[in-house]
Amino acid sequence: MENIFVVGHKNPDTDTVVSSLAMAHFLNQRDKTDIYKPGMVGQPNTETEYIFNRFKVELPPIVLEGKNKRLFLVDHNEAGQMIEGHAVTDIVGIVDHHKFDFKNSEPLEIIARPWGSTSTIIYDLYEKEKIAIPQELKPLLLCAMLSDTVILRSPTTTPKDEAVIKELGKALALDYEELGVEIFKAKAAVTEKLPKEILHNDFKDFEIKGGKYGIGQLELSDFKEIASRFGEILEIMEDESTQNKYRGILLIVTDILNEGSIILATRAIEAEIFHLFKTKKSGPASEFIPGLISRKKQVVPILNDSL
Amino acid sequence: MENIFVVGHKNPDTDTVVSSLAMAHFLNQRDKTDIYKPGMVGQPNTETEYIFNRFKVELPPIVLEGKNKRLFLVDHNEAGQMIEGHAVTDIVGIVDHHKFDFKNSEPLEIIARPWGSTSTIIYDLYEKEKIAIPQELKPLLLCAMLSDTVILRSPTTTPKDEAVIKELGKALALDYEELGVEIFKAKAAVTEKLPKEILHNDFKDFEIKGGKYGIGQLELSDFKEIASRFGEILEIMEDESTQNKYRGILLIVTDILNEGSIILATRAIEAEIFHLFKTKKSGPASEFIPGLISRKKQVVPILNDSL
Repeated sequence: MENIFVVGHKNPDTDTVVSSLAMAHFLNQRDKTDIYKPGMVGQPNTETEYIFNRFKVELPPIVLEGKNKRLFLVDHNEAGQMIEGHAVTDIVGIVDHHKFDFKNSEPLEIIARPWGSTSTIIYDLYEKEKIAIPQELKPLLLCAMLSDTVILRSPTTTPKDEAVIKELGKALALDYEELGVEIFKAKAAVTEKLPKEILHNDFKDFEIKGGKYGIGQLELSDFKEIASRFGEILEIMEDESTQNKYRGILLIVTDILNEGSIILATRAIEAEIFHLFKTKKSGPASEFIPGLISRKKQVVPILNDSL
Repeated sequence: MENIFVVGHKNPDTDTVVSSLAMAHFLNQRDKTDIYKPGMVGQPNTETEYIFNRFKVELPPIVLEGKNKRLFLVDHNEAGQMIEGHAVTDIVGIVDHHKFDFKNSEPLEIIARPWGSTSTIIYDLYEKEKIAIPQELKPLLLCAMLSDTVILRSPTTTPKDEAVIKELGKALALDYEELGVEIFKAKAAVTEKLPKEILHNDFKDFEIKGGKYGIGQLELSDFKEIASRFGEILEIMEDESTQNKYRGILLIVTDILNEGSIILATRAIEAEIFHLFKTKKSGPASEFIPGLISRKKQVVPILNDSL
């Protein structure tokens, strides 16, 4: 039987990488086969590399080309975020926790829940199908949940995520708060990288009212680490917006301890975006917007409904 | 807490009505609440009426207006098949076994499997969540599975459907083949109705390459019951196509015992449709097309890929 590649979105983050590893294992067990193979669609970010090193697990291989491959998608469903070259008819399943923008011509398996991370959904699938989670996957699942829920601070967090994080922390004898802070410190290491790498650390494309928008997010424990680099990042954003025909590019820089964000936006959309988020320009970026933490719950829906 | 209406598609069929009843019960049990209320979006067809009478279960109330109602969709996900007046933001979940064409702006629960009926998926959910299926729902679920899989003859049938149908038949001491034939005889009673009722007995709208198509299906144990009425049905199809701005309307008349269909098509698309299905005109309809049974697996994908 031909392999099925279990892949996440481009610019993979921790939840996407852990989900492809865990979902491939889960599907092989459930369907009593070994055809499901995990893969990363791009280089891992600093946080993901740190976590896999920390728990001594090998990263899945990088798979960049979707042509003539059967695919099971984790942690995304929108065409703009998918592996290059794929055909919709090659997609056999989806597990995700994002909004939907999906169209195909044959029925397939879809498992979506409005929970804080895809890893929480996969953890629940293991439980429901009574399949044992391999010991080495458990700390990775916990880290992915902590990362996507911003240590339970994000408005995407649900009681289900909280219950599973506490359960897993206890089972592994790990203090989830401490582990969470450790992860977000590793994430902060990105601020020493090239501006292009900073922008693409966690970056997704969205089709909004027929126009393409790129939205990046940086989650840090302190703005000081990055503030001096806003100028060069904005330049890269403008270049990329022109070259790749975006209607606009946003970068949301989130202070996870003070629970709020500032926004960088390309010139063409800056005034409109700052107006939508009821903020003003302050230097190269917006003023601090208290409470703004989630791209998924607080940025994308506003753009979808207002642009 | 505000009610959530668990509703199927317009022109409800047995799988859609049974699914809304069973899914509302399942969700109330799972979420330990009583806010989920089943509803039918339109009059039931002759088959559904027969089955609910046969097993002495009350049909869910008819709900025609989706405005300001929170909705959990069963057995459909496409905008054209949904209750009138709904907003996408009112949809809290979907359980379905069709192709997808769905777009929203906030994550929600989606459970989709490429199985023969939505009832099979709901049966599996009860099992996975260890919730007991009420005794009165069991024969209804079995009938819905038999109806949607054409007594296991449709190419949409999977080993999962077959296993569940046999399991349920045994548990209820019902011969599933006999019950299936009884159901399809009840379905045949539609041929005595008005041409408009015949066309709308099982009728769905599809957006295909930006154009609206209406596709009806009649599943009968014998063509003779209907052949003399093709002329008046075609007239109604032309009227409706013009009035409701369809690019075209199809009626697939399926002989379930001889396992094949003939197609009626409105003038504007007739030549193109007959060409796609490699058939010729024979009287008002096409010639018999052996093996053509499933709108979902054999008609809609061809139109999607070829029109």
